[in-house]
Amino acid sequence: MSKFGRDILRDVEGYTPGEQPRDGIYIKLNTNENPYPPSPKVIEALQSVSTEHLRKYPDPVAGALRRACAERYGVPGEEWIIAGNGMDEILALAIRAFVDPGDKLITVYPTYTLYDVLCQLHGCSLRAIPLDDDFQLSPDFFNEQGTLCFLTRPNAPTGIAYPKEEIENFCKSFKGIVLIDEAYVDFADDNCMDLPLQYDNVIVTRTFSKSYALAGLRIGVAVAQPALINEFIKIKDSYNMNYLSQKAALAAIQDNAYMEMRSEQIRKSRTQLRRQLLDLGFSVPESKSNFLLARWDGTPSAAVLFETLRNHHILVRYFNQPRLDNALRITVGTDEECDQLIQALKTIIAS
Amino acid sequence: MSKFGRDILRDVEGYTPGEQPRDGIYIKLNTNENPYPPSPKVIEALQSVSTEHLRKYPDPVAGALRRACAERYGVPGEEWIIAGNGMDEILALAIRAFVDPGDKLITVYPTYTLYDVLCQLHGCSLRAIPLDDDFQLSPDFFNEQGTLCFLTRPNAPTGIAYPKEEIENFCKSFKGIVLIDEAYVDFADDNCMDLPLQYDNVIVTRTFSKSYALAGLRIGVAVAQPALINEFIKIKDSYNMNYLSQKAALAAIQDNAYMEMRSEQIRKSRTQLRRQLLDLGFSVPESKSNFLLARWDGTPSAAVLFETLRNHHILVRYFNQPRLDNALRITVGTDEECDQLIQALKTIIAS
Repeated sequence: MSKFGRDILRDVEGYTPGEQPRDGIYIKLNTNENPYPPSPKVIEALQSVSTEHLRKYPDPVAGALRRACAERYGVPGEEWIIAGNGMDEILALAIRAFVDPGDKLITVYPTYTLYDVLCQLHGCSLRAIPLDDDFQLSPDFFNEQGTLCFLTRPNAPTGIAYPKEEIENFCKSFKGIVLIDEAYVDFADDNCMDLPLQYDNVIVTRTFSKSYALAGLRIGVAVAQPALINEFIKIKDSYNMNYLSQKAALAAIQDNAYMEMRSEQIRKSRTQLRRQLLDLGFSVPESKSNFLLARWDGTPSAAVLFETLRNHHILVRYFNQPRLDNALRITVGTDEECDQLIQALKTIIAS
Repeated sequence: MSKFGRDILRDVEGYTPGEQPRDGIYIKLNTNENPYPPSPKVIEALQSVSTEHLRKYPDPVAGALRRACAERYGVPGEEWIIAGNGMDEILALAIRAFVDPGDKLITVYPTYTLYDVLCQLHGCSLRAIPLDDDFQLSPDFFNEQGTLCFLTRPNAPTGIAYPKEEIENFCKSFKGIVLIDEAYVDFADDNCMDLPLQYDNVIVTRTFSKSYALAGLRIGVAVAQPALINEFIKIKDSYNMNYLSQKAALAAIQDNAYMEMRSEQIRKSRTQLRRQLLDLGFSVPESKSNFLLARWDGTPSAAVLFETLRNHHILVRYFNQPRLDNALRITVGTDEECDQLIQALKTIIAS
């Protein structure tokens, strides 16, 4: 630690993302990327870029993209949308816009571990209310208050989408802001995009990294009433979203049929992979996302399975933390990738 | 203002960037963009991108780019470099990494107005010590202390590069961190990149938006001793720099000869444009950047010149604030663009 570092950051370790090996020998089922390429329209859009667009500053408020998002999400106009450099930026901005250091935030446990890191960086506290034994929202959750609530639906790493009426009831009773993180919602059966229209304390966030297969370009958006969006705009970096990402995101959202076709394929593969994992003896909650949480109480342990899969050049995610340390989080890949995973697991478990 | 907004943000208006009209009818001499395209190697690099790179997360720590920067800047290795989503992100991270709310920062006046906005957003104070009548550092500046000092060299909007020995003396006597913002240094005669090697409190920042003509891609880097860089890494968004920007920046910095050729052309145009402005009766400090501060005490006023140039479809920058309200900040364009500006000014002044 530098002598110039801030005291509140002394013990912060930062968020540890899943491995991103550069050598291409791995089957990557560890960071919930889409196994399929983005829409051909995205490639066309990127190839049409001229040097004029590179040398000039981009549109600081991403107007064209925000208008397309407003249309797609069914809200009145671009003033309901903020676009950012990945959903990570949107989440960090939400804290900086609405939370004072020392405030209390709430979320559930287990969920996306970045929320905890963001709170540490800002000097606020996060109370994580345990999910029940089925990884559903517990009564305690509905009795908690705070400045802001992070709620991932479908949740990660469980894949579970809580009943929507529970979410709406919570938005009514919670006095702070409810940020519903819908990173995985294009793989689910319903979504909460109608809630910002009705409630002035609701923010719904989306990423283009999963269903639109654009993790490399860092694109996230949020939908909320204009009074909330204004606060985001006020504090964001002036040119927070580069030209190529704006252009690619616009092409992607305008070719929604392509995204839905791919998402449908992933849902089919998810059903099949879950069946195969159940057959092998894993316990797997029904997932509404593009990954499965495969719990394993057999031998070798889940930790050993994780390491051994790595030796087979298959990467999955393992969380060495309570309630997850007996499980693997497995991204739904192509059917061929899923088959290779199952074959490797069979080999490892039998040996 | 939303009822959910933070009190410290109530009166914040955010940074107002120069206009970015989308209709292409303007000669843009208002935001210090490079009038020439980026290196052809950048275009080649972008065109070689595969869909695999789009669908996967980018390298979270931009390893290849940081190694190339370390080599070019003459520091031992990538652990001396942080790369970010534009230099704006680097500046914001510097405050969040090293400054507690309530701390005092220092800078000069006039300078880049973003520093003030960043301090407001973080809840810290900024003391701006006036430059002397020649826009040079005053004795008062050297007697001030604070947690962090933002020092732009060459300065904006004056174009002046303070003597380097003054900067080094300041770095020795200042007890906080000195962030030397070298956004425009590729148009100057010397730079401060050797100072981080000698002083543990110095950060030197660079942008690819000006000399490398990549404003559209949002690329900024900073150089400092590893203990400081570690603090940046700890708090940045995990994937703060998208794949295409990493790839383009790498290609740009590896073709430095191209950048230097273009910068030399801009320096020549700068000399010629300054001579023409002096001939018209403007007072223009010698600039070491890619813009000129043209002070005008004649009629019509500088504010009217600004508006009238706009009617001629020529955009320059006008700052309605003390010591600058009699001046235009003019980006050095191509010789043809500069000629059109001079012709328009002649017409306006004569009428």
